[in-house]
Amino acid sequence: MELQLPRGMRDFAPEEKILRDEVISIIKGVFELYGFSPLETPVVERWEVLSAKYSGGEEILKETFRLTDQGGRELGLRYDLTVPLARFVGMNPTIKRPFKRYQIGTVYRDGPIKKGRTREFYQCDADIVGSNSPLADAECVQLALDVFERLGIDVQVKVNNRKVLYELAQSAGIPKELTEAAILSLDKLEKIGPDEVLNEMAERGISRSNAERFLAGAQDRKALKNSEGYRELEPVLSALQDPRVVWTPSLARGLSYYTGTIYEVYAKNSSVTGSLAAGGRYDNMIGQFLRAARGGTMNSPDEVWPAVGISFGLEPILEVLKEKHPERIARKTVTQVYVIPFKTLLAEGRAICQQLRRAGIKTDMDFSAKGISDGLKYANAYEIPFVVIVGPDEVAAGKVKLRDMRSGEEKLLTVDEVPQQIKSQERRSP
Amino acid sequence: MELQLPRGMRDFAPEEKILRDEVISIIKGVFELYGFSPLETPVVERWEVLSAKYSGGEEILKETFRLTDQGGRELGLRYDLTVPLARFVGMNPTIKRPFKRYQIGTVYRDGPIKKGRTREFYQCDADIVGSNSPLADAECVQLALDVFERLGIDVQVKVNNRKVLYELAQSAGIPKELTEAAILSLDKLEKIGPDEVLNEMAERGISRSNAERFLAGAQDRKALKNSEGYRELEPVLSALQDPRVVWTPSLARGLSYYTGTIYEVYAKNSSVTGSLAAGGRYDNMIGQFLRAARGGTMNSPDEVWPAVGISFGLEPILEVLKEKHPERIARKTVTQVYVIPFKTLLAEGRAICQQLRRAGIKTDMDFSAKGISDGLKYANAYEIPFVVIVGPDEVAAGKVKLRDMRSGEEKLLTVDEVPQQIKSQERRSP
Repeated sequence: MELQLPRGMRDFAPEEKILRDEVISIIKGVFELYGFSPLETPVVERWEVLSAKYSGGEEILKETFRLTDQGGRELGLRYDLTVPLARFVGMNPTIKRPFKRYQIGTVYRDGPIKKGRTREFYQCDADIVGSNSPLADAECVQLALDVFERLGIDVQVKVNNRKVLYELAQSAGIPKELTEAAILSLDKLEKIGPDEVLNEMAERGISRSNAERFLAGAQDRKALKNSEGYRELEPVLSALQDPRVVWTPSLARGLSYYTGTIYEVYAKNSSVTGSLAAGGRYDNMIGQFLRAARGGTMNSPDEVWPAVGISFGLEPILEVLKEKHPERIARKTVTQVYVIPFKTLLAEGRAICQQLRRAGIKTDMDFSAKGISDGLKYANAYEIPFVVIVGPDEVAAGKVKLRDMRSGEEKLLTVDEVPQQIKSQERRSP
Repeated sequence: MELQLPRGMRDFAPEEKILRDEVISIIKGVFELYGFSPLETPVVERWEVLSAKYSGGEEILKETFRLTDQGGRELGLRYDLTVPLARFVGMNPTIKRPFKRYQIGTVYRDGPIKKGRTREFYQCDADIVGSNSPLADAECVQLALDVFERLGIDVQVKVNNRKVLYELAQSAGIPKELTEAAILSLDKLEKIGPDEVLNEMAERGISRSNAERFLAGAQDRKALKNSEGYRELEPVLSALQDPRVVWTPSLARGLSYYTGTIYEVYAKNSSVTGSLAAGGRYDNMIGQFLRAARGGTMNSPDEVWPAVGISFGLEPILEVLKEKHPERIARKTVTQVYVIPFKTLLAEGRAICQQLRRAGIKTDMDFSAKGISDGLKYANAYEIPFVVIVGPDEVAAGKVKLRDMRSGEEKLLTVDEVPQQIKSQERRSP
């Protein structure tokens, strides 16, 4: 047997996990600032739930990991956090609305392995269930702007309303059965350009004249402003009033369940061209899912669950951070200070450790008693920024030696003075 | 189809998840204070790894969820965080030791459902790999004391060394093949009393005289102090010197892979009688696992991986908190302030929201424009502690009305004054 990970899955050693945790903590913090509360659902769901008619669709079910429990019950690993949300509100129908929840967790897709695509990955989702207000849509975009500001990533947010595209397809004469194909091609406009979009539409069986009318229509912003879709979008845009938010009439967000406002967040001037976060309004999905799950009958007129949300992708965000802020990555340990006591001073070393920890300093200690140079090697290997040396001379003087491992500078200090010194030097050299 | 969760699994709605997150954050904080860095491994592992000879054993494999990927590879859901740690160090053999990592995550057991036992549950593990020092054992216990102090839970830590029990069984004349059965019975001494222990040993085929000698020996602390096991334990106890830490010679920690120091943490004066955290030294497990995984050969003399760790159980900790600190539970939302604007003042409301969020206040807003009393009902339903009312009179005066929902007290303030007021009132009423 070879020691291996499951295909398409990864370990995150501390040098990666530390930064991942920082990003998750920033996202979590902003979610809470915006009044979203945490929900946790299991990684495992019943297969019936995952495969209910209005959940993820055929494509996604092919990529869903299946398993059974000892009782023979059919189960699967969740492929997103939206179906679990729909199940949760269905099982808690009296929950006061709007219900604002966030969930940060791993999801699973047993699909082909491409660059940067793994079979286990994080989604960080915030959703508002039970509000029709366009201000709820605006809040989701505002929240994204806030997250990326705190992450130090310049972004552009493309915004549209799904109805803009449906209306446009209809007025361009595109047959109903080809509308979704046409929209999917148009969605690629900014990526592949107008000629390729027209070619693709032709391949998909859309007549040249309809395709041209559809494409031209999507670029005529003035005319589009008279559409029903734009009338829905306008209050969202005017609530935001932000130059980073750009109406992009060709934006479609694939064939997903969105019904109104949609948005995708992109990093500016980055080699990462995929979206870092995306979402939109999906007013039918939860209600349809619940009706399907319950065998086609509406329980009550309350079974209408308008919803809007945003989902952050941890992996592309980390890619951008590694590109833009290489200084933030590759901390090998959280430890700030490594205490190295002389062989005979292990007890004193431990006491100093505990004192530093009580002062909030992340402290580790050399238990090996193999000597100072061995201890310094260890601190170097893990790039621990400070070392405290506890030797007989220092102890006799009631002090310790604090060494800044980057500059090599050493200071004789009382233990009480160490935390302050570390904090001020950390501020100077980021 | 019924909307259901997988059997033995749970949702955690915000009123539970908020407290769970607080506990996890305290544990994570202390792990880092003690110089443990985060590691993340996938929830899914290869079946070969999970079933390798020296990992969890037969019993645990019966309860392991199995699945396959599209390529037909055999996989399973992890049943603990220790096997993944062993695999990680095996795949990263040059990692500088001692390697100190923590991992907080869900594990899965497809076992019988008992009260308080679920098929998905959290483990919070910190381990030191590659140190033989008894001070490493002491650190794990010290860390536990620190965690429970911060959680506000009074605990007792039972400590022992596995060798104490093996030596004792031998000198009591218990046959080798019955030693583990005898130890498992003795482990129940504090729970079921000496008579029941003797009965159980008899049932397990241990002669009355051997059983009595074993039991008496376990209670003769003075004689036990001459054992090899105690000589190993003594430096751990003397490093800790804490009245909460009690040497308990009957403590065995089941049939797990521990080789030396073992410890279990219990809440004092609580109805929760199971351990809240436990762990110990396991010097053979990782090396044996890696040798088994690699087909029985040692790669190098370095293939010795002494290790010691501690694992916190989130569920029993939460049970104790609910019992001891009922005031901490059942916050229904993280939101501190609910902004209710008059219908015509939605834009002003949003601006105030953003201003409060920039000041670090978790703020939500009523988009419905259904009126003040509807908004107050919502704030009441979620027990949001403060409401900001944005009406025409307030706006004309450049102010807002801050209402304390618990006391009903209202104050006219500038938006700038609101955060300070909220923070000071939160301090007064916890």
